[in-house]
Amino acid sequence: MGSNLARNLARHGHTVALHNRSWVKTQVLVEEHGSEGTFVPSESTADFVASLERPRRIIVMVKAGGPTDAVIDELVPLLEEGDIVVDGGNAHFEDTRRREASLREKGLHFVGTGISGGEVGALEGPSIMPGGSRKSYAALGPILESIAAQVDGEPCCAWMGPDGAGHFVKMVHNGIEYADMQFIAEAYDVLSAARLTAGEIADVFREWNTGELDSFLIEITADVLSQVDAATGRPLVELITDAAEQKGTGRWTVQTALELGVPVSTIAESVFARSASGDSAVRDAARGTLTGPNRAVSVHDRRQLIDDVRDALWSSKVVAYAQGLDQIRKASEEFGWDVDIATVARIWRGGCIIRARLLAQISDEYAAGGLRTLLVAPSIAKGLAGRQDPWRRVVALATTAGVPVPGFSSALGYYDTVRAERLPAALVQGLRDNFGAHTYGRIDRAGAFHTLWSGDRSEVEA
Amino acid sequence: MGSNLARNLARHGHTVALHNRSWVKTQVLVEEHGSEGTFVPSESTADFVASLERPRRIIVMVKAGGPTDAVIDELVPLLEEGDIVVDGGNAHFEDTRRREASLREKGLHFVGTGISGGEVGALEGPSIMPGGSRKSYAALGPILESIAAQVDGEPCCAWMGPDGAGHFVKMVHNGIEYADMQFIAEAYDVLSAARLTAGEIADVFREWNTGELDSFLIEITADVLSQVDAATGRPLVELITDAAEQKGTGRWTVQTALELGVPVSTIAESVFARSASGDSAVRDAARGTLTGPNRAVSVHDRRQLIDDVRDALWSSKVVAYAQGLDQIRKASEEFGWDVDIATVARIWRGGCIIRARLLAQISDEYAAGGLRTLLVAPSIAKGLAGRQDPWRRVVALATTAGVPVPGFSSALGYYDTVRAERLPAALVQGLRDNFGAHTYGRIDRAGAFHTLWSGDRSEVEA
Repeated sequence: MGSNLARNLARHGHTVALHNRSWVKTQVLVEEHGSEGTFVPSESTADFVASLERPRRIIVMVKAGGPTDAVIDELVPLLEEGDIVVDGGNAHFEDTRRREASLREKGLHFVGTGISGGEVGALEGPSIMPGGSRKSYAALGPILESIAAQVDGEPCCAWMGPDGAGHFVKMVHNGIEYADMQFIAEAYDVLSAARLTAGEIADVFREWNTGELDSFLIEITADVLSQVDAATGRPLVELITDAAEQKGTGRWTVQTALELGVPVSTIAESVFARSASGDSAVRDAARGTLTGPNRAVSVHDRRQLIDDVRDALWSSKVVAYAQGLDQIRKASEEFGWDVDIATVARIWRGGCIIRARLLAQISDEYAAGGLRTLLVAPSIAKGLAGRQDPWRRVVALATTAGVPVPGFSSALGYYDTVRAERLPAALVQGLRDNFGAHTYGRIDRAGAFHTLWSGDRSEVEA
Repeated sequence: MGSNLARNLARHGHTVALHNRSWVKTQVLVEEHGSEGTFVPSESTADFVASLERPRRIIVMVKAGGPTDAVIDELVPLLEEGDIVVDGGNAHFEDTRRREASLREKGLHFVGTGISGGEVGALEGPSIMPGGSRKSYAALGPILESIAAQVDGEPCCAWMGPDGAGHFVKMVHNGIEYADMQFIAEAYDVLSAARLTAGEIADVFREWNTGELDSFLIEITADVLSQVDAATGRPLVELITDAAEQKGTGRWTVQTALELGVPVSTIAESVFARSASGDSAVRDAARGTLTGPNRAVSVHDRRQLIDDVRDALWSSKVVAYAQGLDQIRKASEEFGWDVDIATVARIWRGGCIIRARLLAQISDEYAAGGLRTLLVAPSIAKGLAGRQDPWRRVVALATTAGVPVPGFSSALGYYDTVRAERLPAALVQGLRDNFGAHTYGRIDRAGAFHTLWSGDRSEVEA
């Protein structure tokens, strides 16, 4: 990814100094791609730093954690006031906050930067989410914006906010990506259970990609589902081991949301669906022992089922975005970042894994201002109103047929929770007061109250 | 809670030395309850420590976090080798591990101990979950067992394992408690939506409490739902603010489970349901804007609906226990605690908030050995087989009626996930390979594979 980013910079006319732990790798890069622009390779860190113009702008692309600290420790003594160190890896935002504070004390800028788009994106234009000081962005922004994906003439790169804001936004991006993929997997599963073949489902996704679901993940789903295994002649997806792996940013998203008190239930279900799929000991024990309907989705009207699943997918996706963006809003308040959500959605429109037509709509809705949750944005609320019946039909159908849809149903549960006039949380508060004297509020007057449950059952003000 | 624990000890014939930051509180305790046993009050920490026989056994009951560290720091210089400090608060198990290691270096025993049962339980017999060294339990166990709840002549107290094991088990106990309460709230909500009054639902819970759901939480639910508000003559539950609060152990359970890679989706949904209920800004915005069916649960056969909801409640509860106990098993492996799950379930049968008839069954099943997940225990699998149809009916009905059941549906989603012959996680792996070259496994041969998606689409071994 680092070398592709370097090539992208060189192709855009920037002179790129190169340094790598392995001198051979640096030489190979220059040999193979030297003609794409101007590279200045250095074998030693000292030569590399000396070769840079001031303020130095160094983009570090190494593994998150210890390796990042090791590189920073090696660089810092060689730098001068005002120099900028960019961490383009998937660091935890708390680590970024710590590193930023430490380098700031030394008069340096540390810019934790989310970069999404994978290896191809790094070369052809990723979505870039830099944090750090506003001042650093003045020196760095024009360079990063020049190599980012462009949508409608706008770069998919903007300053997210101070210290850890960039890595936080990238973390939530990945959390939403988990949910997006889980919903896609559930859509595929429901359609499979209705006896559509992988090839037919590929066509369905291809069709969806021309409408409101138009997005990179829907596009590559069609691509993956179309792939036929050369050895067996069967659809490849049916031969892939059904144990999903993960690298950690989804987990971080949920852990952080719990800390902030923001419900990101769809992301949690998606992370847990992956771990459950990988627990072969539990699955081996449960398969054959636990009874249930045998994925018998009966189809009266195939076209309606396909449309229903499309609507369930769109609606669930909207809930995942609402939850993730709410988490960014809450963190922004908590850490004083002042992140602009419209800008976040804007720079996710291109380059990144979750790029989607929907993001332009989301960006516009947030830009209009005053949005407390994405769900109530006029165009979104209208979209949900027309789709919530089909969405319910899909969840009920899958539930009855024994097809697991933890993502779709969690999203719908959140939708019905926030719109409820009254929630049974009142009973939870009553129970907490009964066994733990935790007190409760009343809808008809202010204050905290406690019932003397084991006394005369009168109510006292706490 | 501390004073009730002291009284419980005194009532069981133990001489109890007392010390409190507030000397007045100590005096009041002795004045009001001195006749219940032998108390030795001390005004200063030094006098308190000097008054104890060796090895000293000190139970600290203060707020988790800083206050616990402050008391430990004050005590340690006054203690001698082999003395035992018990922390009976709700500490995070990682803090307990740190404190245990620190005191062990000084030749002292630190025993992080979960205590459940609230104030009443502390006095009349709680469930007690001590960790720490096995040696400390030899000196401490008989005392704690004497004051614990007793079920069938057995104390609800046992050594859980080294260092943080006791607080870990207590944390998961609380996580399961969150899920138990969420399921109860959903059962109440579905029955309310079917136009049963609070009083009628109280009767339903009272009836349930004579059968397989027999438990403390079901009992007090009937109690809470029966309560009529004196001022208005209306059921109290309808006057309580529907924003559920939380104190943190549920959140810790989910955060830790994510770290361990154990899916505890039901507990996560329960924690998130509480935070969503408390987000009045989102709810105010969503109410009236988001459309949906108006909780119209139509009832053809009221008796069947009640029985269906009972079965959904039992089945969901079993899933929450399966997930929580799996988390304990995984942590036990991770930290080398060797926790005996049958013993955990045994000491939860009495004294604690989640005490339930079901726990005897769970304990017996784990004692029989070799259980990889509670769901496949013979008597549990049989129970689920007979209840999964009603469970599906309730989720489908609520989904259609717009009544949020995130707990029930998440539990069912887990059930259908682990029993699935094949999961769409295969597609997730295919997508990850497509955009990130993360590779995938194949069901027909060993190894890691990658398709050259943007090349000739052939497959290579990674």
